[in-house]
Amino acid sequence: MKVTLLGTGGTIPTLRRNLPAIALQRDGDIFLFDCGEGTQVQFLKASLSPGKLFAICLTHLHGDHVTGLPGLLMTIMQQSRERSLFIFGPPGIREFITLFKKSLGFNPSYFLDVREISEGRFYSGPNFFMEAVAVDHKPRTLAYCLQEAPRPGRFHPEKAKELGVPEGPLFGRLQRGETLTLESEKVITPSMVMGSPRKGRKFVYVTDTRPCPQVVAFADDADLLIHEGMFISEMENEAHLKGHSTVGQAAQIAKDARVRKFVITHISSRYRRTDELRKEAHNIFPGAIVGKDLMEILIPLHK
Amino acid sequence: MKVTLLGTGGTIPTLRRNLPAIALQRDGDIFLFDCGEGTQVQFLKASLSPGKLFAICLTHLHGDHVTGLPGLLMTIMQQSRERSLFIFGPPGIREFITLFKKSLGFNPSYFLDVREISEGRFYSGPNFFMEAVAVDHKPRTLAYCLQEAPRPGRFHPEKAKELGVPEGPLFGRLQRGETLTLESEKVITPSMVMGSPRKGRKFVYVTDTRPCPQVVAFADDADLLIHEGMFISEMENEAHLKGHSTVGQAAQIAKDARVRKFVITHISSRYRRTDELRKEAHNIFPGAIVGKDLMEILIPLHK
Repeated sequence: MKVTLLGTGGTIPTLRRNLPAIALQRDGDIFLFDCGEGTQVQFLKASLSPGKLFAICLTHLHGDHVTGLPGLLMTIMQQSRERSLFIFGPPGIREFITLFKKSLGFNPSYFLDVREISEGRFYSGPNFFMEAVAVDHKPRTLAYCLQEAPRPGRFHPEKAKELGVPEGPLFGRLQRGETLTLESEKVITPSMVMGSPRKGRKFVYVTDTRPCPQVVAFADDADLLIHEGMFISEMENEAHLKGHSTVGQAAQIAKDARVRKFVITHISSRYRRTDELRKEAHNIFPGAIVGKDLMEILIPLHK
Repeated sequence: MKVTLLGTGGTIPTLRRNLPAIALQRDGDIFLFDCGEGTQVQFLKASLSPGKLFAICLTHLHGDHVTGLPGLLMTIMQQSRERSLFIFGPPGIREFITLFKKSLGFNPSYFLDVREISEGRFYSGPNFFMEAVAVDHKPRTLAYCLQEAPRPGRFHPEKAKELGVPEGPLFGRLQRGETLTLESEKVITPSMVMGSPRKGRKFVYVTDTRPCPQVVAFADDADLLIHEGMFISEMENEAHLKGHSTVGQAAQIAKDARVRKFVITHISSRYRRTDELRKEAHNIFPGAIVGKDLMEILIPLHK
């Protein structure tokens, strides 16, 4: 998994921070989280192909999070896309898409599979699923999680040989979870020759919200949590009024959720330098990363 | 007058060419022609303040020409704008704006004076007016002209003195067009002490159209014509099918209209190098300029 921060600003763009958009690459597919104005140009800058988009997950219907959608969908059409494209988001996104399709005379050549979702699991793939949870912002805003299924444990060929399994296709059958009965009538189960299952990776994206307790459970043990931190602590009142989090509040969520990596995004245009944001985050979550446009973050497989 | 090319691409943006947007600065106001996705960031790059916008003129309702509008209008609101803002365009723009205001819950704090216009003069200011003409593209597309009123001729103080006008406030009255009767009962008209009126400047913007004869009259004698030239001549058929012009066709329009400066815009993303475009244009209109993002073009006063 590779995550690319396409836009780490919020509300208004700056020369350094585009509006919200996060791309997650996995197994040849791209999952896009939010689609602020300018996202299609950020795809170009990051050398990502919009043709590889599998799904676009929108947190909420504020302009800064969705105004890049019409242009991106139109550009995808220029690329002769055939396979359908999922768009997930809270209620209202269907109307938004219907209205701009109508007023701009946009008739995509591919199927736009728009799904207004509520909390809980909303998509299950062959070896991953996606979940959403409602957070504390208006209009209704969702946070997203992509969770991979556990991978089978490591296969130990020397143990299999010791138990009398001949090298060859039987190894593969054990690795795929089959129990074998050898000619000697000895029964060999996968657990006899394989390590314990390895955890799947977990990615969580939370933006436009006051700090909220349900996110701690939602992000529990994530490999990567991207959480908004729009202001520093001295602006906590303003953050609260506007339905946002401070960097310190976001870091506390990351700490409580015991995540491995924590990246701050949706940073207010008032902060040209990020020293203070970094310092505030590090006081609570050492190693916290202040997001930058086009930053890439790898999420390695669990061993 | 200063014109800044904010976006010289068409259909899809590239790393070098944003989607269509042209800013014209005049008398402290900015007139914006088209508003493709990313225009607000181009304002930042060009150090232009959206707060100075007087009017936005949209050629037509294709996504690449209007998808920057919601974001720009929202950002203007963040800047506490109070004065109203004109938006001119063909029928359909009111619905487009109404729909995105509704679906994004956007309620501007300033008055959006949206006017769906047809051909002819659509706005008269104190010393300029604006006109539109329909061109050959679908959906209905308008080309725009901003024409300044002539300026009074140069005042010759030595002639006035010769005729017995005393230096002082009477000079100003002559320059403002008043006829004077001196104490000697001599009548002095402004034309006796002033040169002939000086032409006002004329700016014309034409994009998304096949070459069309009405543009020649519309752009006649313009100081600056910005005309689309999406393809080179060998793609004339494709240009025609898509409702666009070749560079050569655009140059012929510029030549026939006897414009002073001619700039090509709305350049297809297929052209990374512009040598060929420049050559084709120069064969017909020597001095033709192939537009580049953030290029600035001055239009000096007529002397």
